[in-house]
Amino acid sequence: MAMHVLVERLNINYKTLEEFRKFRENGLEELSMLEDLQANLIEDNSSSPFYGIYHDGKLVARMSLYPIEARFDRYFTPPRDHYELWKLEVLPGYKGRGYGRALVNHAKSLGRPIKTNVRYGAQDFFVKLGFRPLKYSPTRDRGENPYVWIPQEQTEEDATRLR
Amino acid sequence: MAMHVLVERLNINYKTLEEFRKFRENGLEELSMLEDLQANLIEDNSSSPFYGIYHDGKLVARMSLYPIEARFDRYFTPPRDHYELWKLEVLPGYKGRGYGRALVNHAKSLGRPIKTNVRYGAQDFFVKLGFRPLKYSPTRDRGENPYVWIPQEQTEEDATRLR
Repeated sequence: MAMHVLVERLNINYKTLEEFRKFRENGLEELSMLEDLQANLIEDNSSSPFYGIYHDGKLVARMSLYPIEARFDRYFTPPRDHYELWKLEVLPGYKGRGYGRALVNHAKSLGRPIKTNVRYGAQDFFVKLGFRPLKYSPTRDRGENPYVWIPQEQTEEDATRLR
Repeated sequence: MAMHVLVERLNINYKTLEEFRKFRENGLEELSMLEDLQANLIEDNSSSPFYGIYHDGKLVARMSLYPIEARFDRYFTPPRDHYELWKLEVLPGYKGRGYGRALVNHAKSLGRPIKTNVRYGAQDFFVKLGFRPLKYSPTRDRGENPYVWIPQEQTEEDATRLR
């Protein structure tokens, strides 16, 4: 039986940014948040696009979930408000506990379609969670592996098609 | 002294696609090329966006270089025709021989600005080759770490600025 795992929306503060440094995918985005905080361009504890899971008070898994408006949608027909999911990562020593799945399920619970770029080795993980690959488009995808998940639609007429 | 390393434009054929399977970043793009070849949608030996280095007849390093027209440019001011570089990868056992550098230098020799998404651990490699990080934009970059390289400009007036 899976334990209940709490997924929390992360606030941007020095503690969070310090915890982010343990994750592999730590780059210009995190640096930019730190600079904005230092320059008072954003307030301490501003809400971020990151969600995470704590274990014994320590951030051990995270993902970023960025809302994309329908007018910027390049993946669904008709265009839809959706989320772009990236930086899904569980720290070494905390894998195999369902934390990654809990994060993705949280994203799905928000009720919008999701697009993500699936890295080598993670295809099965996302397929098991109901995602499927899109047909590759060189101009749109530029080397990405776009996979999408769509909430169950009410009727056939409502069905969202993929590009 | 560095040996001369030959960088070749790769053609899409069954042999190339079979060699691509040894690389980690093998996904929808390579699958799409295979399907197009099987369905006769493209000819055998069509030119691809990939460049590679062979050692004893075996493909041991590759990159993809995709031309972006100025009207689709989101990185330079004024907008410029440039290349997007991705899937730069050297097979295990062939690292430390300058193959990655030779591929990037080949891209630079084409005379256009280059944009790439730098992964964790590769920042120093690209900075040494004259690339620099852009200011992170959440809407544009969505978790990417965009680094760019710009050819030396003739005059101050010609100088390309970064967004």
